[in-house]
Amino acid sequence: MQLVSYIKDGHEQAALLVDQWLYDMDGLHPELPNTMSMLLQYWDEYFPFLSGAPIMIREGRISQRNATPLAGAALMAPVPHPTSCRDGYAFRQHVEAARRNRKVPMIPEFDQYPVFYYTNHNAIFGPGDISCMPDHFAKLDFELECAIVICKEGRNIRAAEADNYIGGFMIMNDMSARTLQMEEMLLNLGPAKGKDFATVLGPYLVTPDDLDSYRVPPPPGHTGHAYNLAMTCKVNGVELSRGNLADMAWTFAELIERASYGVTLYPGDVIGSGTVGTGCLLELNGTGKLQDPGYTEQWLQEGDVVEMEIEGLGTLTNTIVREEDDFSLLAIKK
Amino acid sequence: MQLVSYIKDGHEQAALLVDQWLYDMDGLHPELPNTMSMLLQYWDEYFPFLSGAPIMIREGRISQRNATPLAGAALMAPVPHPTSCRDGYAFRQHVEAARRNRKVPMIPEFDQYPVFYYTNHNAIFGPGDISCMPDHFAKLDFELECAIVICKEGRNIRAAEADNYIGGFMIMNDMSARTLQMEEMLLNLGPAKGKDFATVLGPYLVTPDDLDSYRVPPPPGHTGHAYNLAMTCKVNGVELSRGNLADMAWTFAELIERASYGVTLYPGDVIGSGTVGTGCLLELNGTGKLQDPGYTEQWLQEGDVVEMEIEGLGTLTNTIVREEDDFSLLAIKK
Repeated sequence: MQLVSYIKDGHEQAALLVDQWLYDMDGLHPELPNTMSMLLQYWDEYFPFLSGAPIMIREGRISQRNATPLAGAALMAPVPHPTSCRDGYAFRQHVEAARRNRKVPMIPEFDQYPVFYYTNHNAIFGPGDISCMPDHFAKLDFELECAIVICKEGRNIRAAEADNYIGGFMIMNDMSARTLQMEEMLLNLGPAKGKDFATVLGPYLVTPDDLDSYRVPPPPGHTGHAYNLAMTCKVNGVELSRGNLADMAWTFAELIERASYGVTLYPGDVIGSGTVGTGCLLELNGTGKLQDPGYTEQWLQEGDVVEMEIEGLGTLTNTIVREEDDFSLLAIKK
Repeated sequence: MQLVSYIKDGHEQAALLVDQWLYDMDGLHPELPNTMSMLLQYWDEYFPFLSGAPIMIREGRISQRNATPLAGAALMAPVPHPTSCRDGYAFRQHVEAARRNRKVPMIPEFDQYPVFYYTNHNAIFGPGDISCMPDHFAKLDFELECAIVICKEGRNIRAAEADNYIGGFMIMNDMSARTLQMEEMLLNLGPAKGKDFATVLGPYLVTPDDLDSYRVPPPPGHTGHAYNLAMTCKVNGVELSRGNLADMAWTFAELIERASYGVTLYPGDVIGSGTVGTGCLLELNGTGKLQDPGYTEQWLQEGDVVEMEIEGLGTLTNTIVREEDDFSLLAIKK
């Protein structure tokens, strides 16, 4: 199933997407809630009501009369209010390339445990405009990732069980302001201001059953589901990034295992995969310069259109907008 | 005013603390809410109803009949459900000592911008037992800090205005599992598993007006309120840490300015100061070993009692408890 959140009459509304039409959840069955947060909170209870709906719609047993066309609907992030947002670092190629570009060797600890960091779960955006402040435009970047959302409370979840806690998959664009990020990371607390202004999710939340046909074995010695899904990112129609979700060196199940160690995960917690190889300008620029000292760096500019596509998960399209404000952290630096 | 949250009849209840008695908020005035989250959400509206209450209580115009004695009350964190949790790095002495112990020089960027990271706002504890998993006991540590909570939504808040967004102050103990933390920080994303299992807040939320008599000027060239408040931490009755909140090199106002750059802050967002100098075992052990190669490291053990005191903010007392579970991230490391 493909699930969305959109703005209806000024309010958040969760809906099922079938054949380009949005069916409001609480219209499908009186037991179903009208927000994604509530759906995730009582997922196991609600799922049976929902899972029969696509067939009933296609067989005409649920009328299209009250449905809303996808075209023109004001989509939000499918999970507009995550209860938290962690981001992993699971793609070896991205980490290798980033380190090669910084002229430091690959780090053996990458293969020992799947690290993540916490980012700002209160700055989540869906398809559409992404508003950025002046400092963000100092080396503004996208990051092509896949994210999952937790649908069941759990603590100390072992990897072998962890796929059962995944409600669905979404494209994630972890927008990054590299000048702010590189400055703050000198103090060793990781990225915060460099990434806290926008994490983009969408366009749909795709439930795991929809991806069964893409399942492949995890990397040797690893546990959990893996999926053969091509991932691309275009900027202004030009493809810059291409990778595959199956290249995650650590599975989402293993990320959940680590995240839940001594910590309760809640329905609505989002976990990102980390950036796929070639999946951001920082990596592409570094590689470009290594190969050609005359290479000209590219960063996102006002008006740029970023289109991320993951097989089975749709296309997430955003336009970069400049917020007019003379406030600058870089300028008030002491 | 001193505000608390406690468990009453199995439910969270916000109360005003006056002379060792808890006065439930919704009992003080029918307009007042019964949770801290709701109070913070509509702070400016509710504050006038609340601020007159202590005098009315002391003059006998509000009866003690329905009040609950503080002694024996099951206190939660005063803000049991922060909407987010950032932690700063504002005490120069702590950063200097930590770097000296690692034999690296002080970093000039410390004085240029006040960094922070995001930690797990869904693992907040109040006074009482802190349950730790086996891996957490591999170099288990406390961190003595002060935290503020935001009481008004804001974005791009300038430092000169930022103190108006502070609802109150609390003691914060940023519990840390140093082995997990040191391992993950090798991958440059900052601390996550090393700190996500417990952040302790309490015992009260103290509103800024209560601290007016402690106000001192901020460091030269800085903006915002500073407070001359002695900070100590004892473990099993022995004082290990002593510092002062006035030694923050960056003010909370400046932390709010940075945090809110291009990002909306919400009522309920918590921001920690970072560790005060001498305020954790990692720092104390490093200094001890530098001064005496025969020094024996000390880490928190099962049953230890950690008592943090900040002048004007009370005493936060916790007991370290071991969770019996054979799950270990350190053991499954590849």
